[in-house]
Amino acid sequence: MYSAFMTTPERLIESTRELLWERGYVGTSPKAIQQRAGAGQGSMYHHFSGKPDLALTAIRRTAEELRAVAGSCLDSPGGAYDRVRAYLLREREVLRGCPIGRLTMDPDVMADPELRKPVDETLDWLRGRLAEVLAEGRERGEFTAGLAPEPIAATVVATVQGGYVLARAAGSAAPFDSAVEGLLTLLAAFKAPV
Amino acid sequence: MYSAFMTTPERLIESTRELLWERGYVGTSPKAIQQRAGAGQGSMYHHFSGKPDLALTAIRRTAEELRAVAGSCLDSPGGAYDRVRAYLLREREVLRGCPIGRLTMDPDVMADPELRKPVDETLDWLRGRLAEVLAEGRERGEFTAGLAPEPIAATVVATVQGGYVLARAAGSAAPFDSAVEGLLTLLAAFKAPV
Repeated sequence: MYSAFMTTPERLIESTRELLWERGYVGTSPKAIQQRAGAGQGSMYHHFSGKPDLALTAIRRTAEELRAVAGSCLDSPGGAYDRVRAYLLREREVLRGCPIGRLTMDPDVMADPELRKPVDETLDWLRGRLAEVLAEGRERGEFTAGLAPEPIAATVVATVQGGYVLARAAGSAAPFDSAVEGLLTLLAAFKAPV
Repeated sequence: MYSAFMTTPERLIESTRELLWERGYVGTSPKAIQQRAGAGQGSMYHHFSGKPDLALTAIRRTAEELRAVAGSCLDSPGGAYDRVRAYLLREREVLRGCPIGRLTMDPDVMADPELRKPVDETLDWLRGRLAEVLAEGRERGEFTAGLAPEPIAATVVATVQGGYVLARAAGSAAPFDSAVEGLLTLLAAFKAPV
């Protein structure tokens, strides 16, 4: 399943990332990780102290990737509205849901402060970065003064996370796209007249 | 744990509802249901054919309750904006998440068309009802003509569902409240001048 050039710990981490995304932490057994990675039990426990240790490494890597992708939309040149729009419209595997957001519904991840930390930090960072972009836009006169950066940044992240919920329930990306379209219409009303 | 007046099937259904909310379907074993209900294995299989059957009854009941609560906000007298606002601000156990929405992250619920159906129908009904309220408000001149009911209804439901994700990650209701506040600010800009 994985390239022959990948080391065993790499295969274990990648298998864990995929299984956490598909089945969550509660639904992922050490055995399932080993099978997908093509690694034995001894090998897994040689490299990692157990499922929590491996999951932490996997979650941290997924969180880094998510930041990099969101950052590349939000750091791009152009106006604030267009950068937020680029973040909202970036290519996503909508029906798979968010590999970070979905962990908030996982009771064992939420109950473990170490596993929960990268989930919290990632979503917190995303809200903060969006609020900065919106505040910048307001400073530059791209938005009207009534635009409140922090609540609206929370609305943007919530729309994406909730859009996944709607799409998965419907078995179609359409409600995600609709929620994003609605938000962009609402946000466009705060663009300052040129 | 339950009233002595509750029948065994009732206790089994209520236990399943709680466990699905707390731990999801994948994380809930028949044994855990029996223990919480104070019912034996024989009794559970006498009343229900198995975990999927019991879960379906539990999910349907939770879905009905959710519709009743959302309906009571959206059917109330008053203007469309105020009804949507009442739905957004209704009392919620934010940190527990949505008992219906969280099931979209449950791989075994999503893979079973029967279990997934009440999840899909509930969220679909909610979007539809919100779109009706918004369309009514636009007809009556409460909103400006630019308000698109269907996408904005999807944004409203997504904000709530995603607000739960943010709140659970942060271990605080604050980001949920912030996302709702942001959405209400955006929506208020579409209120027609009186």
